[in-house]
Amino acid sequence: MPQNLGQALATDLYQLTMAAGYFHRGRAEHRATCEMFVRRLPKARRFLVALGIEDAVEHALRMRFSEDDLAFLAELPALRDAMTPDFIGYLRDFRFRGDVWAVDEGAVVFEREPLVRVEASIIEAQILETFLLSAINHATTIGSKAARVLLAAEGRGVVEFGTRRTHPESALDAARAAYAVGFAGTSNVEAGRRFGIPVTGTAAHMWTMAHATEREAFEGYFSVFPNSSILLIDTYDTPRGALRAAELVRDKLKGVRIDSGDLGAMSREVRATLDANGAPQAKIVASGDLNEHSIAALVAEGAPIDTFGVGTELVCSVDAPALSGVYKLVELDDGSGPRPIAKFSEGKGTLPGPQQVHRVRAASGQPLRDVIALADEAAPTAPEGGSTAPLLSVAIRSGTRVRDRAAMGDVRARVASELESLPASLRALAVDPGAPRYAIEVSAPLASLVDEVRTRVVEAG
Amino acid sequence: MPQNLGQALATDLYQLTMAAGYFHRGRAEHRATCEMFVRRLPKARRFLVALGIEDAVEHALRMRFSEDDLAFLAELPALRDAMTPDFIGYLRDFRFRGDVWAVDEGAVVFEREPLVRVEASIIEAQILETFLLSAINHATTIGSKAARVLLAAEGRGVVEFGTRRTHPESALDAARAAYAVGFAGTSNVEAGRRFGIPVTGTAAHMWTMAHATEREAFEGYFSVFPNSSILLIDTYDTPRGALRAAELVRDKLKGVRIDSGDLGAMSREVRATLDANGAPQAKIVASGDLNEHSIAALVAEGAPIDTFGVGTELVCSVDAPALSGVYKLVELDDGSGPRPIAKFSEGKGTLPGPQQVHRVRAASGQPLRDVIALADEAAPTAPEGGSTAPLLSVAIRSGTRVRDRAAMGDVRARVASELESLPASLRALAVDPGAPRYAIEVSAPLASLVDEVRTRVVEAG
Repeated sequence: MPQNLGQALATDLYQLTMAAGYFHRGRAEHRATCEMFVRRLPKARRFLVALGIEDAVEHALRMRFSEDDLAFLAELPALRDAMTPDFIGYLRDFRFRGDVWAVDEGAVVFEREPLVRVEASIIEAQILETFLLSAINHATTIGSKAARVLLAAEGRGVVEFGTRRTHPESALDAARAAYAVGFAGTSNVEAGRRFGIPVTGTAAHMWTMAHATEREAFEGYFSVFPNSSILLIDTYDTPRGALRAAELVRDKLKGVRIDSGDLGAMSREVRATLDANGAPQAKIVASGDLNEHSIAALVAEGAPIDTFGVGTELVCSVDAPALSGVYKLVELDDGSGPRPIAKFSEGKGTLPGPQQVHRVRAASGQPLRDVIALADEAAPTAPEGGSTAPLLSVAIRSGTRVRDRAAMGDVRARVASELESLPASLRALAVDPGAPRYAIEVSAPLASLVDEVRTRVVEAG
Repeated sequence: MPQNLGQALATDLYQLTMAAGYFHRGRAEHRATCEMFVRRLPKARRFLVALGIEDAVEHALRMRFSEDDLAFLAELPALRDAMTPDFIGYLRDFRFRGDVWAVDEGAVVFEREPLVRVEASIIEAQILETFLLSAINHATTIGSKAARVLLAAEGRGVVEFGTRRTHPESALDAARAAYAVGFAGTSNVEAGRRFGIPVTGTAAHMWTMAHATEREAFEGYFSVFPNSSILLIDTYDTPRGALRAAELVRDKLKGVRIDSGDLGAMSREVRATLDANGAPQAKIVASGDLNEHSIAALVAEGAPIDTFGVGTELVCSVDAPALSGVYKLVELDDGSGPRPIAKFSEGKGTLPGPQQVHRVRAASGQPLRDVIALADEAAPTAPEGGSTAPLLSVAIRSGTRVRDRAAMGDVRARVASELESLPASLRALAVDPGAPRYAIEVSAPLASLVDEVRTRVVEAG
C-alpha cells in the first residue's frame, strides 16, 4: 500500500477548505453519500479490473491529522483564517465514522458504475476523495492493462519488469496490480517483500558487458547460480549467444532471455539451437517493449516463448495512461431527510441517489448486462438458470471494518474467474469504436430520479 | 523525494543477483562507469527538462541494507544460495563510495546525452540503476510535459491539479516537477508541506451541490473565506453562476472557476458579466482536461483566462507517458586498466567510454548544438561571441557529496532561463516528424572509439 496511506494531508487543498466551510457553517454533521465511478472507459479498454479499492478502504480507517499536520495547516495562507481553535480541535479528533460500500478488489467493472459508496459526515466524505481516487485510478489503470496482457499471453507466463519506467513508489503499486491480475511475478524486490509477490529476474546486459567475453560471462554466472541460470543472450549476437549458453550449461540451463530484435524469428532459432545442443529443458523469456498486441502476435505465430517480461507498456499503460475515475455527491441529509443530488455540468452529469450495481449472468456464468439501480431497489429478475448479484458490499460500518481486507490469493482467484467468464467480445484486444460494448442499463426508478432532480435544480436555480 | 529513497531493496532482483555474482567471482572491486541517457525523445517532445537528478544523487548517498532487508534476501529463492555469510557482511557494510557526475536539476537535455555518470565499484554502480532510472524517468516525463504547458500559457498562471489521477506518492513528485518547471502552485497539501510549494485551490462542485441553492453555497463560502473566495460557477449554469457570484460578492470576489463547456466562449461571457456587475477584479480560473494544445488555442483566441488548472494530461503525460531513459556500462577496469564498453544489440546500441556533453551557444545564449564527447576531450571551439559549457558536473566524489542539492528556487530560475533561451523551433508545440530537430553531434574521438569497440567485441565474440 502507498506509504502515505492514512495521511490526511494526502489530499487537495479544496477538500480542507470545504471541510472548514462545512464546520463553520454548522454543517459538519450533515450526512453525505458520495460515489466513485469511472466516467467513461478509455478508448483502448473494453472493461476494467477494479483495484486500489482495499487501499481506499484502509485509508478511510486510518485517516488522521497529526499535530505536525495541524501546525502546517494553521500557517497555510488559504486556510489560516478558518483554523480556529474549535476547528483545530475537530481535526485533532477527526476519525472516519461512516460507512463504505465497495466492489470487491479485482472485480470487473464498467463505466458509470459506482465502485465505492461512502456514507458519512460530509467532512469525512469530502476529505477522503483525493486519496481514494488516486489509489483506485492508478491501480485500476495498471490492472486493466495487465488483464489485456494476460489474455494476450493465452496461458504463457507473464512477469512484470517495469519498475525503472515509473515512480519508485507507484512501481510497487504497479507490481502488485499486475500480480493481482495474474502475472507470475515481479522483478521489484521491495514489492516482493511488501506484498509477498514472487520475485523474478534473469541476467543483465551489464553482467555480460562486464566480462571480457560472453563465454566468460556465462561461465561465471552459472558457477554462482547453478540452479537458476537464465542467461541473457542478445548482448552481441543472439543465435551465437544461444549456442554458447547451450554448449556451456547443457541440461542445467534454466533458461535464456532475448531482449531485442525480431522476437518471433529469434525465439524459433534459439529454440532449435537449445534443443539441438543439449538444452531442451531451457525456457525462453522474451522482453523489450512488449504489450498485449505484440504478445498476441507472437502467440499467434507460434513463437516458442515461455515467459513474457513486460515493463514500460504496462506500468505506464501507454495506450490508456489516464482513467476518468471521479467521486460525486449523490445524496445529502441536512437534518431534514435525505435529498438526492446530481450535477448537470456540460458533459459531466452524474446520477443521483445511493446506488447499487446488479450484474446479470447467464447460466454459464457469463455476464449479460449490468443494471445501475437505486440502492434500495429489488434486484432485477435473473434470466432462466442465470443469476443476478449486487457488486457493492459493505466494507466499513460506522467507522469499523466489517469486510476483511481481501487476501492476494483470493483476489487472484477472483480475477481469473472473472476474466474467464467474460464474453469473447470483451476479451478481444481489438479496440475499434464499432466493437460491441457491454450493456450498462440504468433502472427505471433511477432514471426517473434523474429527471426529478434535474427539474428541481433547474427550477430552484 | 520518494519515501523509499535510500532503500536498497527498491531495485530489480537482477541487480542483486549480479551483485552476488560479482562478489563471488572476485569482481566486487572492479571499477565500473555507467551512464544514464534517454534513448530517444518521445514523438511528442522536442526537448526534455531533466528532473529527478537530485533524488538519484541522494539515493546513492543513502543506499543501505537494513537487517530486515538482509533477512528477506537470505530467504529469497533466487538469491538464497548466494547469500553466504561473507556476502551478507558485504551488504551490511555496503555504502556508495564512488563518484557521480550529473547534469543540473532542471537542465534542458536531449536524446543520447548522458544525464548521469556513475563511477564506482561495479556492485555499487549496478544496485543504483533501478532507483536512479525510476526517479529520473518519472520526474523528467512530468517536467517535460509541464514545460510545454507552461510555454503554451505564455505567461498566464498555471497550477497543478492532478493528484487524483495518479498514484498518491507519484502525485507528490508530479507536483514538484511541475513547480520546478514554473507552475505557480499545486492543489496537493502534502506536496506543499514536503517541498514548500504554494498550495492553491478553489471551491468544489460538492460544496455547491451540498447546498439547497447555488446562492446559498456562494454566500456560505464567502462568509468563511471573505478574502480568498474563488467560486466554482459551472455546477448548474455557468453564465448564471457568474452573475450570481458577482452580484453577491462584488469587489471582494477573488475569482471564479469554470470546469466544463467551451472555455473560450464561456470565459468571455463570464468576464463581461463580472466586469458589468461590480467584480472587474475577479480572476478567471479554467480547468477540465486541459493540455498544452487546448491552452495554446485558448490563448490564441484571446480567452480572458488568468490561470489554468492542469491535472490529468500533465500527471499522466498522456501524449508521452513513458520515457526511454536507460543506464549502461561504458567502461570497466578489472585491475588491468580501463576498457571502454558498448552494447550492440539490435536497435539498442550504446556509446562507449566516460562521456561529457558540451552545449554550444550563440552570443545570444541560444543553444546551437550539443556535442557528446569523451570526458577527457577538450571542449569544442565556441562560435564567435558564443560559448560552450559542459553539462555534467561532479555531485559525489568518493561517496561524499561535493555539489549542494539544488534549492527549488534555483531550479525554477534555471528552467525559466533555459526555456527562454531555446530557439522557436524547440519551443513550438507542433510535433510533426518533419519539424527541425536540435543538433546532437558525436565527437570524432568518440565516434572512433565506437568503431574500435565494435571491432574488438565482434572479433572476441
